[in-house]
Amino acid sequence: MRIVSLAGGIGGARFLRGLKAAVPEARITVIGNTGDDITLFGLRVCPDLDTVMYTLGGGIDEDQGWGRAKESHVVKEELAAYGMQPQWFGLGDRDFATHIVRTQMLNAGYPLSAVTEALCDRWRPGVRLLPMTDDRAETHVVIEDDEGRRAIHFQEWWVRLRASVPALEIALVGAAEARPAPGVLDAVAEADLVILPPSNPVVSIGTILQIPGIREALSEKTVVGVSPIIGGAPVRGMADACLTAIGVETSAQAVLELYGAGLIDGWLVAEQDAGVRLDGVRVEARPLIMHDDEASADIARAAVTMAEELA
Amino acid sequence: MRIVSLAGGIGGARFLRGLKAAVPEARITVIGNTGDDITLFGLRVCPDLDTVMYTLGGGIDEDQGWGRAKESHVVKEELAAYGMQPQWFGLGDRDFATHIVRTQMLNAGYPLSAVTEALCDRWRPGVRLLPMTDDRAETHVVIEDDEGRRAIHFQEWWVRLRASVPALEIALVGAAEARPAPGVLDAVAEADLVILPPSNPVVSIGTILQIPGIREALSEKTVVGVSPIIGGAPVRGMADACLTAIGVETSAQAVLELYGAGLIDGWLVAEQDAGVRLDGVRVEARPLIMHDDEASADIARAAVTMAEELA
Repeated sequence: MRIVSLAGGIGGARFLRGLKAAVPEARITVIGNTGDDITLFGLRVCPDLDTVMYTLGGGIDEDQGWGRAKESHVVKEELAAYGMQPQWFGLGDRDFATHIVRTQMLNAGYPLSAVTEALCDRWRPGVRLLPMTDDRAETHVVIEDDEGRRAIHFQEWWVRLRASVPALEIALVGAAEARPAPGVLDAVAEADLVILPPSNPVVSIGTILQIPGIREALSEKTVVGVSPIIGGAPVRGMADACLTAIGVETSAQAVLELYGAGLIDGWLVAEQDAGVRLDGVRVEARPLIMHDDEASADIARAAVTMAEELA
Repeated sequence: MRIVSLAGGIGGARFLRGLKAAVPEARITVIGNTGDDITLFGLRVCPDLDTVMYTLGGGIDEDQGWGRAKESHVVKEELAAYGMQPQWFGLGDRDFATHIVRTQMLNAGYPLSAVTEALCDRWRPGVRLLPMTDDRAETHVVIEDDEGRRAIHFQEWWVRLRASVPALEIALVGAAEARPAPGVLDAVAEADLVILPPSNPVVSIGTILQIPGIREALSEKTVVGVSPIIGGAPVRGMADACLTAIGVETSAQAVLELYGAGLIDGWLVAEQDAGVRLDGVRVEARPLIMHDDEASADIARAAVTMAEELA
């Protein structure tokens, strides 16, 4: 069985660990969000790709959900001693090495997809991890505060401001010119089914869907999504702030409508959202909290089973 | 009093600490060797500038003589886990931060002299530290081994091979086109005296003297040098291997002749080398082992006194 899954960061990565456990025989290709990528201290950082890679490869800080286990922060402290900005982004020493390798390869001319494959040679995540694009497509957020109305990098809004200033607009700069990374459209074409994990529907899944050609390719497939919203609140993270920015209600119903019946064939919601309905979409209610690996695997298994039935 | 001093790495840096202590009122400009600089993992490393900066700024590993005190090596271990080469160059986590800052500034278009000034804003070494040049002038070493005759970077010969393979030739690639860094010739012109510490006469002092214009400018000044050779052996390091490569005997006499009476006005040698003579050069014998800061200061004071008398 060939499965394609899209993925953002923590939630997506944990779901994918469940998916691997649920269907160990499946060949899984993960299309990762790179809209959050940022260049810090001259080093290219890909938070979502790394979270997937570290989580599936056994290197993740399990408590935090991102970054490396047993991490130290000497480099970051030294950079601060030099007065380097920004200081609001958490980069550990082990993590720095990943960004140094990536940056050196990118500067040598390798595309991000090749770099990601090289990094995965070490981590062996058990899935094929592809960036959504090798091109620069960066999520920017328009805010308005004392300094006026301006666009800032997604990470500045998300990490530095903790999404406390309302996002007036969220835009994927460069989306129109970006092309899916090599392998993305082929993987979708060859997939038996597609699973959307409960990642952020705006800045993770929504970002990937903006790369020209990806949504169209997915629409040809049996796609089952897992709602990232339970009872009107995000399972984790600050998806509500993102949904509000694009004028969408924070509900399992609204996210399903955002994705649309043209894309989605099946939709898993939590039991309190059992009333969700959309023509052309089969909706199933079940426990959706990923409180441990077993729970994640159960949810993933339900998604796969539903997709197989729909296919 | 304005003093210009050239400097290589460990020996030069320790001598400079003595010089600062000997003449605390002096304004000292240090012209640092950059022929050993190397790009590792995409980061620009300037071993000699950093050794001077850390030593005078209180950040050096005193036992080792190079690198940062209280250093850890997480990044290096992680890079090795990714299979990154080379693994023979010792880069600590604290040190990495310096190279990250430097590389980011260089990539942003700042010349090395401006970058070095910015790094020194933190370290406050108490001297003005200038790279010999902002241009690329790299020391390469010609060796012949099982893989044939070939030129390798100085660091590969020095650090990886520990100078165990004879150097057939030592060349400063790019020297002819290099220009002294901004401030270098002005500092020399304004100097009351020039001191050459007991740095490597080939790959440290000799390298700096190869940058067009520097030797000529120094020749106009009163220059006192401290012999790096005591009784036929280097005070520290592997200067003998470098001297042999350029066909010069490892002796205080031969190094003086290498520098030449056109450059040198005064020459401090160890007591066992009291017989050294060269027309036009005043030679003085005294203890030259820098076994502690006080000894270094004594030697530096003797050099300054001699230069003042000769001026």
